[in-house]
Amino acid sequence: MTEKKIPYKIYLEECEMPQVWYNLRADMQNKPAPLLDPQTKQPMTVKELSNVFCEELAKQELDDQTRFIPIPQEIQEFYKMFRPSPLMRAYRLEEKLQTPAKIYYKFEGNNTSGSHKLNSALAQAYYAKQQGLKGVTTETGAGQWGTALSMACSYFDLDCKVYMVKVSYEQKPFRREVMRTYGASVVPSPSTETEVGRKILAEHPGTTGSLGCAISEAVEKAVTTEGYRYVLGSVLNQVLLHQSIIGLETKAALDKYGIKADIIIGCAGGGSNLGGLIAPFMGEKLRKEADYRIIAVEPASCPSFTRGIYAYDYCDTGKVCPLSKMYTLGSGFIPAPNHAGGLRYHGMSSTLSQLYHDGYMEAVAVPQTTIFESAELFCRTEGILPAPESSHAIHVAIQEALKCKEQNDAKTIVFGLTGTGYFDMYAYEKFHNGKMEDYIPTEEELQASFAKIPKI
Amino acid sequence: MTEKKIPYKIYLEECEMPQVWYNLRADMQNKPAPLLDPQTKQPMTVKELSNVFCEELAKQELDDQTRFIPIPQEIQEFYKMFRPSPLMRAYRLEEKLQTPAKIYYKFEGNNTSGSHKLNSALAQAYYAKQQGLKGVTTETGAGQWGTALSMACSYFDLDCKVYMVKVSYEQKPFRREVMRTYGASVVPSPSTETEVGRKILAEHPGTTGSLGCAISEAVEKAVTTEGYRYVLGSVLNQVLLHQSIIGLETKAALDKYGIKADIIIGCAGGGSNLGGLIAPFMGEKLRKEADYRIIAVEPASCPSFTRGIYAYDYCDTGKVCPLSKMYTLGSGFIPAPNHAGGLRYHGMSSTLSQLYHDGYMEAVAVPQTTIFESAELFCRTEGILPAPESSHAIHVAIQEALKCKEQNDAKTIVFGLTGTGYFDMYAYEKFHNGKMEDYIPTEEELQASFAKIPKI
Repeated sequence: MTEKKIPYKIYLEECEMPQVWYNLRADMQNKPAPLLDPQTKQPMTVKELSNVFCEELAKQELDDQTRFIPIPQEIQEFYKMFRPSPLMRAYRLEEKLQTPAKIYYKFEGNNTSGSHKLNSALAQAYYAKQQGLKGVTTETGAGQWGTALSMACSYFDLDCKVYMVKVSYEQKPFRREVMRTYGASVVPSPSTETEVGRKILAEHPGTTGSLGCAISEAVEKAVTTEGYRYVLGSVLNQVLLHQSIIGLETKAALDKYGIKADIIIGCAGGGSNLGGLIAPFMGEKLRKEADYRIIAVEPASCPSFTRGIYAYDYCDTGKVCPLSKMYTLGSGFIPAPNHAGGLRYHGMSSTLSQLYHDGYMEAVAVPQTTIFESAELFCRTEGILPAPESSHAIHVAIQEALKCKEQNDAKTIVFGLTGTGYFDMYAYEKFHNGKMEDYIPTEEELQASFAKIPKI
Repeated sequence: MTEKKIPYKIYLEECEMPQVWYNLRADMQNKPAPLLDPQTKQPMTVKELSNVFCEELAKQELDDQTRFIPIPQEIQEFYKMFRPSPLMRAYRLEEKLQTPAKIYYKFEGNNTSGSHKLNSALAQAYYAKQQGLKGVTTETGAGQWGTALSMACSYFDLDCKVYMVKVSYEQKPFRREVMRTYGASVVPSPSTETEVGRKILAEHPGTTGSLGCAISEAVEKAVTTEGYRYVLGSVLNQVLLHQSIIGLETKAALDKYGIKADIIIGCAGGGSNLGGLIAPFMGEKLRKEADYRIIAVEPASCPSFTRGIYAYDYCDTGKVCPLSKMYTLGSGFIPAPNHAGGLRYHGMSSTLSQLYHDGYMEAVAVPQTTIFESAELFCRTEGILPAPESSHAIHVAIQEALKCKEQNDAKTIVFGLTGTGYFDMYAYEKFHNGKMEDYIPTEEELQASFAKIPKI
């Protein structure tokens, strides 16, 4: 049988787009552990979660039974403005590597927010609007989530308040201006606007902030302001649910051409992209309908899967959020200041944590100078300048393709290219000038951080 | 007859992509005036031009007879990495404006170079490689062309030397780093590397450079270095030829849905996008097969069509390039330092100049604060953060749509969205902070500049 000629880009027609999200938890025998109230240590109810999250999103957060959740018509319409995203065949990279492997990547950087984060931002803004809210609050580190949410809020005419980790606010003024262009209000965190912010500033006057601190501020602002709720761009079950559109489209595009993936690779910070990309494949694996190697790639400077411990931990510095059972480095862990891009959260999605714990996926940690080498190679062959986050997946895809070359094995590799690196040129500049360094936490540092994880 | 439902994005299939470029000049009764040798003032021959340009490109430059020129197979393959580009229906903008007009835009920012410039960069790099050259030189101002060429040269494994206007080199370090990521060598202009650069530096020690000066340096470097030629991203006939792919795809997508455009709008600097977008429509107009209103939009700070004179003029400050007959503000004209983005060239494509002179198109000049207002409106409704250049076309499209509203007239408006504004956030920041100013040259300034145009 001759192979059907695969185009550079596989686009689905609009009519072929998924009309439901896939809820991976429904197919898990060992469900992810429930969120716990930080005070009572009891599982959170929808009602309790609804003080922080929009009600519909709180329901999605706790629903581990419904396999398919219809995507509301209005969200489907918005998705059509930038989806389906292309599944690209990396012909030029394959040629460069002289590998028999077939490499595909799902490119999610094809919208002005520049990353996959828009998939969940639109959904969360939609439900906030449905509930009649006035606005939402959130945090952002590298800025992708804040950008995506600002964009989504401008679509739905919602106020958007973004607590941006101070070091990013200062070092990434252009990210900030993108958010302002979409009409968001952007505040450097820690700020004097919240109690938790003032407390942190009093204790650490010179602090440049952290994601955990910005989360605490955003949550406090949401629960103390009439008509506001908090939204989050990663880690949560609801986010993975929305991001399943990535995997569903990928699978539909592969199926359209009769392609069976062997290895699926995604970068992993809180798990939003990885969880979305792998969802339908993992579902088949859980149901024993097919088998795949699934690989999570994380930065060596923030290695929650590969060096963290699996335990209940706080999601934020201020300990105002529910506790989540996950692979964690401890809620006080902050990656070294030279760490470029995102993937800087101390914990990991509880769903992915459970799956990893149960042996359904592999994980690998890679230092950033290595990542940027692969990013540059990819850029010069495939023409897309990747975000540092995405380059983690690129790197491991290249490694696997080189293994295929050694073994003369024509495996099919699929990886997630979550976004573009336009706003990370400062890091690229350091790399070009030979000034990028790696920092890998020592065992002692990790142990000290682990010691602060609560015993539950 | 019911209207066929038009999707948000009209994508052509790869097999529907144009396989030829359309050479608009073939259908012009009044051909654009020939390029003249700056010394002898005689029309340049292919042989003479081949000292500066690749031979095949020199042929394309002078060919005003061949209507269709096949796109080499290899270029077609490269185009498939980012083309066809989507033709978008601006449903949300229409709704926001409450206009009966139907607005479409051809989005060319969908590749890492971020603009339409890649269409010609790939073609020019291809012909350079075919000729066995070692590398190419060019200039860049706002950086879009330099980025596109760097990307194209990395595809074809060619050296790429970019003279970047010094003020941009310093103010846009990230643009510079993108080019370096693709492997280009980037030099601030004026430099001490060339005779013309040293001369300009001696005469104007504090100069921050200009496009005209960077062109002179790039040309000198090309003609004095073995195995190098010069390439240019706008103004030239060959560039308009390559960019015709924009218009051909646009027309094919409209035809696919039985849509007839009424008004076609493009921003105009040197004319690369405008000339490409309008090509097949203008062809029909020239052949009297259809009629369209065609509108060029230029910055009020660099108004070559609307306030320039139609005359032979130098293309560069150093007067090393051929003379071109065009609408020009004088080769010494430099837009005010606060001018954001590109569209800063003193002249205009000779093809477009002839067509404008003959009454086949309209032109309008708009001040930049007005442009950024429309850019922000567009960003918040359509979700794409536009380049300042593209926002010129957006602005006039909005104006025309509002006229349709007044007159209750459901016209079909098509405009070119040439690129994204990721690297223009400094300008957006000034706009947000109310610090953006307009500067419109006075009549006296223009007259002083006109006085230096040679009498030919």
